[in-house]
Amino acid sequence: MNTTKFLLSENELPQTWYNIAADMPSPPPPPLHPGTQNPIGPEDLAPLFPMELILQEVSTDPTIPIPPEVLEALSLYRPTPLIRARRLEAALDTPAKIYFKYEGVSPTGSHKPNTAIAQAYYNHKEGVKRLITETGAGQWGSSLAFAAGLFGLECKVYMVRISYEQKPYRKALIETYGAEILPSPSPYTNAGRAILEKDPNSPGSLGIAISEAVEEAVGREDTKYSLGSVLNHVLLHQTVIGQEAQKQMAMTGDYPDVIIGCVGGGSNFAGLAFPFIREKINGKEIDFLAVEPASCPTLTKGELRYDFGDTAELTPLTQMYTLGHQFVPAAIHAGGLRYHGSAPLVSQLLKSGLIRAEAYTQLNTFDSALLFARTEGIVPAPESGHAIHAAIKTARQAREEGREKTILFNLSGHGYFDMSAYTNFLAGNLVDHALSDADVKENLAKLEALPV
Amino acid sequence: MNTTKFLLSENELPQTWYNIAADMPSPPPPPLHPGTQNPIGPEDLAPLFPMELILQEVSTDPTIPIPPEVLEALSLYRPTPLIRARRLEAALDTPAKIYFKYEGVSPTGSHKPNTAIAQAYYNHKEGVKRLITETGAGQWGSSLAFAAGLFGLECKVYMVRISYEQKPYRKALIETYGAEILPSPSPYTNAGRAILEKDPNSPGSLGIAISEAVEEAVGREDTKYSLGSVLNHVLLHQTVIGQEAQKQMAMTGDYPDVIIGCVGGGSNFAGLAFPFIREKINGKEIDFLAVEPASCPTLTKGELRYDFGDTAELTPLTQMYTLGHQFVPAAIHAGGLRYHGSAPLVSQLLKSGLIRAEAYTQLNTFDSALLFARTEGIVPAPESGHAIHAAIKTARQAREEGREKTILFNLSGHGYFDMSAYTNFLAGNLVDHALSDADVKENLAKLEALPV
Repeated sequence: MNTTKFLLSENELPQTWYNIAADMPSPPPPPLHPGTQNPIGPEDLAPLFPMELILQEVSTDPTIPIPPEVLEALSLYRPTPLIRARRLEAALDTPAKIYFKYEGVSPTGSHKPNTAIAQAYYNHKEGVKRLITETGAGQWGSSLAFAAGLFGLECKVYMVRISYEQKPYRKALIETYGAEILPSPSPYTNAGRAILEKDPNSPGSLGIAISEAVEEAVGREDTKYSLGSVLNHVLLHQTVIGQEAQKQMAMTGDYPDVIIGCVGGGSNFAGLAFPFIREKINGKEIDFLAVEPASCPTLTKGELRYDFGDTAELTPLTQMYTLGHQFVPAAIHAGGLRYHGSAPLVSQLLKSGLIRAEAYTQLNTFDSALLFARTEGIVPAPESGHAIHAAIKTARQAREEGREKTILFNLSGHGYFDMSAYTNFLAGNLVDHALSDADVKENLAKLEALPV
Repeated sequence: MNTTKFLLSENELPQTWYNIAADMPSPPPPPLHPGTQNPIGPEDLAPLFPMELILQEVSTDPTIPIPPEVLEALSLYRPTPLIRARRLEAALDTPAKIYFKYEGVSPTGSHKPNTAIAQAYYNHKEGVKRLITETGAGQWGSSLAFAAGLFGLECKVYMVRISYEQKPYRKALIETYGAEILPSPSPYTNAGRAILEKDPNSPGSLGIAISEAVEEAVGREDTKYSLGSVLNHVLLHQTVIGQEAQKQMAMTGDYPDVIIGCVGGGSNFAGLAFPFIREKINGKEIDFLAVEPASCPTLTKGELRYDFGDTAELTPLTQMYTLGHQFVPAAIHAGGLRYHGSAPLVSQLLKSGLIRAEAYTQLNTFDSALLFARTEGIVPAPESGHAIHAAIKTARQAREEGREKTILFNLSGHGYFDMSAYTNFLAGNLVDHALSDADVKENLAKLEALPV
């Protein structure tokens, strides 16, 4: 029988995180203070994060050791499998080999616990009692709820109201892990009240929910804030994915020609890609493809410039590809990809040409997700459906060109909490959204007062 | 770091199924024809099942080879991990070691694909074009939908109406795999129409849904019927679980003192236990504990006698512990355990004293499931919550007695499609049901005309 699953034992878990800032040709410029617009120092971030995470945020060391307590918690589900999609290959009749790293085996079904566990650990270590965060589709909120529980921390999650109402199972999961959850905008913060005054029925957005969480964290001594993507330390924690994949690709005897990940904030793409980008910087030839929704085309249509991470302009300004912090993306099912900005590290890599980006419309990604489910069994999260679509497109092209090609993509999560999306797709109720150039221009125009 | 996950590679997949009928002190007596009440032969079952499955049903060979095509499909998710629940042990402060076999890693989240794949394969091999089945909570229906798709078969699922309405995500999963699903009772069969005439709002039951599926299978040349538990060949296919666990327990250096599984029809309990029961028959000391809901206490309060598998009396009569085929259990959340009967093989083992049984009420099992989720991360299916409760009870007893004890249980599935059960539990909306002796007597009285 041909091997399909490439497994590592627990003692092969990576012992360090890989910090790409040490190897980048052009690292991102420093974040700016939201008020003064001057470069910020560690002390400016101290109300939000514990000091060890702040130091990781600005570190230029190439590797950072993973604490034993974090390794032990990661070992509840890591190392994750690398799987060759032989049945998908057969269905596509392609000479390409398709491998995927499967992060859906975590308790919350996505890659998010990789950083949630690390963040909960460092907060616990510095005496923090309570973590607060926001969540869109719920992958991040449920992961932080799970991780906070492991280290005895209280946890509170502001969930974008439209998702809170549409995804009762994610809400239930967050409560099962013992965390508190409430819909955003809420009447409990200035940011939330300001939105509700204008629109009592506001469906909410990630930007608004971030504002609420940050506001509450800053206002309470025992509480810190936690973010599930975008920031350097978050991407750092995800590099266990790519380091495992390096060992596992070596077991296959193949080497990836193309590496693919979907991008919302950028953390699952970064997690798989960064350790391999190091190999590219050192001379290997790999094509890195970041994929995003056409309805929120940050990397393909946004502008690289300073912008806020949230709607209420409470967060530091970071240089990133952005569609503008006031932009509210269409309500596509890949909720985890509906973010106006993109990680500064990923943005710089795109600018420097080390990676490239493509945007897809929703129906195409669901077509590909369905083919994947019916051949490989796993029903993918709608976000991961974007990566699958890119892999299938690449494999079809390989067939046309008659080229053997090795494709590796990150299956960042399963879709078992998103089945209503599949119901809607199968019933023909989903529509495509693509953001027009005019809309992009209009949103970016609102940033004129900010530094570039 | 202490090892928590014991993994096997694909080439360690068992190559044969283990048939306990070869080793049992008292095998079950033959099934009887529903009309004549005479022992049935293979030809009587031919309208329902392909011949290779019928031969497995009556086989007394100790091992039956697993076809390469079945092994290949199983390898999409097998071997499954054996995990030591170190965090649960710590929370219980017990000297006991708690191991669990985790079947939730399958694409449909439970052990059911182990037999669905084998059944789809043999049907495909004998030229069948279409499979029909019933499902309660949906674990079985989604697994057969998945497996049928792998072998290019059409699939139709009658889902108990109350579950069809309460579990839209399971319905969506079945449709995602390309199968047809409809609520039972339906107006499309005699059995369904008879029920609807009496009660147009009937919530349905497994017994009714089986009647509908069997009736349609018998009436169509291109269609066979498929059952997810109870029958000998189904339990046979599940023995890959226990055979893997034997190898994995050897890796741990421990040997189980207690082996636990929840019982509806009996297939996940049998899958883990049977290969170890062979060791008990050969002289090892192991305590086998089958656990069930107090609202459907087939093994602990039922009678061992001939009974029908369905409501409309279309199936053969088998000798099993039963509460009577007219019995409709209370609407507890562990839908997979709401069956009036129990596998003939499991029933005989209970009668012969090789295994024992206990029944638990719903709230206790959810308490234990919640503790498990908050320590180990995995949210268990409500069915598996019964096995967890037994393991926790046993571990607490070990602490009281100051005894080191090795516990092994089957975590037959995750609960990510059952989150509404957790919402209801956390909100205090669940109630306990326990079937009274008087109710048991009343239901069994209806079987008087049947042979014992």
